Amino acid sequence: MHPLITGNTRIYGLIGDPLRSAKSPMLLNRLFAEAQTDAVCIPMEVGTQGLAEFVKGARAVRNLAGLLVTMPHKQTMLEMVDMLHPTAREVGAINVVRCDPDGRWEGAVFDGLGCVLGMQRKGVSLHGKSVLLVGAGGSGRAIAIAIAAAGARSLIISDLDPQRATDLAQRAGEQGSCTVHAGPADPAGHDIVINATPLGMNPDDPMPIEAERLNPATTVVDIITRAEPTALLLEARARGCKTLDGQPMHVGQALLALRFLGFKEIEHRYSTGL
Amino acid sequence: MHPLITGNTRIYGLIGDPLRSAKSPMLLNRLFAEAQTDAVCIPMEVGTQGLAEFVKGARAVRNLAGLLVTMPHKQTMLEMVDMLHPTAREVGAINVVRCDPDGRWEGAVFDGLGCVLGMQRKGVSLHGKSVLLVGAGGSGRAIAIAIAAAGARSLIISDLDPQRATDLAQRAGEQGSCTVHAGPADPAGHDIVINATPLGMNPDDPMPIEAERLNPATTVVDIITRAEPTALLLEARARGCKTLDGQPMHVGQALLALRFLGFKEIEHRYSTGL
Repeated sequence: MHPLITGNTRIYGLIGDPLRSAKSPMLLNRLFAEAQTDAVCIPMEVGTQGLAEFVKGARAVRNLAGLLVTMPHKQTMLEMVDMLHPTAREVGAINVVRCDPDGRWEGAVFDGLGCVLGMQRKGVSLHGKSVLLVGAGGSGRAIAIAIAAAGARSLIISDLDPQRATDLAQRAGEQGSCTVHAGPADPAGHDIVINATPLGMNPDDPMPIEAERLNPATTVVDIITRAEPTALLLEARARGCKTLDGQPMHVGQALLALRFLGFKEIEHRYSTGL
Repeated sequence: MHPLITGNTRIYGLIGDPLRSAKSPMLLNRLFAEAQTDAVCIPMEVGTQGLAEFVKGARAVRNLAGLLVTMPHKQTMLEMVDMLHPTAREVGAINVVRCDPDGRWEGAVFDGLGCVLGMQRKGVSLHGKSVLLVGAGGSGRAIAIAIAAAGARSLIISDLDPQRATDLAQRAGEQGSCTVHAGPADPAGHDIVINATPLGMNPDDPMPIEAERLNPATTVVDIITRAEPTALLLEARARGCKTLDGQPMHVGQALLALRFLGFKEIEHRYSTGL
């Protein structure tokens, strides 16, 4: 439930394809309602073919105050905004657009920072830690850069495409004092293991890592958001590991996106818990 | 309040400029919520300049299931849909667009039929009645045609622009057995008087009719929707007339629009009362 929609309500559109399992409208509308903000988040399912026309049309809607951007538009949207936040430039993608009253659109991406914030909010600090990240795709790329910048000691990036892992390792290595390399999906000896592949969304997916080599001291993060724990999380819990599912990252992203969109009061409200 | 918005929710956009006093989102969202329909009505403030671009972009949004159209787009939208419902052809305007799954858009207008339905739902039958309609603009045009077709005996149309009143009288006279003429805004001798001018929206507006000539047997309808009764309605009540404000027409329009959009269950639910 969320507050009454009136003729004055500001619109935040979630654009992507498909959107049927999207969780952002529920989360944002709950935050808007609790903060008594006259705003609503609605899904707008737009395919690749229609994106350019959609963007031109959306610019004519005066009460459209922002867009949340999900697959497959995160890269394409880079060319459709007027300004890029540093996060969008670093990661090469956009997951939120702020539509300013002067008509200018600014794009940013909080996948990576949201993952780090979500971990911090659950008591998992990256400072001085050794991290294995599996998956160097869109989310993996954002997460690698944010982890390297968040004070991790070392980061190993694993991907089915070794070149993609190597390229991302080089890029993430420029972020701070973190040592970043491409490597195998072997969790042994890491403080934190993060799955940023889609493996685990379907019941018959293979494990994204060599789960039998998990140590109880390792925290396992699976960024997949679904109601049931993934096979990786079940296996990690069985081995005594601390686990985090996709929810903390999802909330972390939302809080950072809301700050970027100008909802400082919502971010403040949830600075401690959600 | 209305139901949870998910990634599957169908969108009904209200387009117009300005929209700050629009009431349709509240009414439709209440009907959607009570019928537990996974749909939401949101305002989309689009100016005249942006309409063509907006329509092209909106056609890319797969879960956009319809548009409610208000000023200043009711005429312009005629050229932007693929099919016209008979009401839209007769009246020369559109106030609702159904976006079919095959991508075709059909436009219709229920201002007039909604006014007649609203009156019927409040026990005011037009059958055999003598009616004075003041205002031959967009709403007046639709109402005149619907009244003539609903079995009224006679209809006098009054407008500050006599030619506009005469043209509309000729058009409405083609609808049925009703005798239609242009004439003065004199309520004496009429069973029903309808104000379809904007006079009464502002406190210092002049009266739309010669109110001192109102008879207690006359029913007075003012289609203006606002929280406070208009000066015309206050005067009519003081003279012992039955009065209807803009709400019955607003609800009548909404019910007909929902039937056109495919929500038969909602129309059925409110076939007796709202």
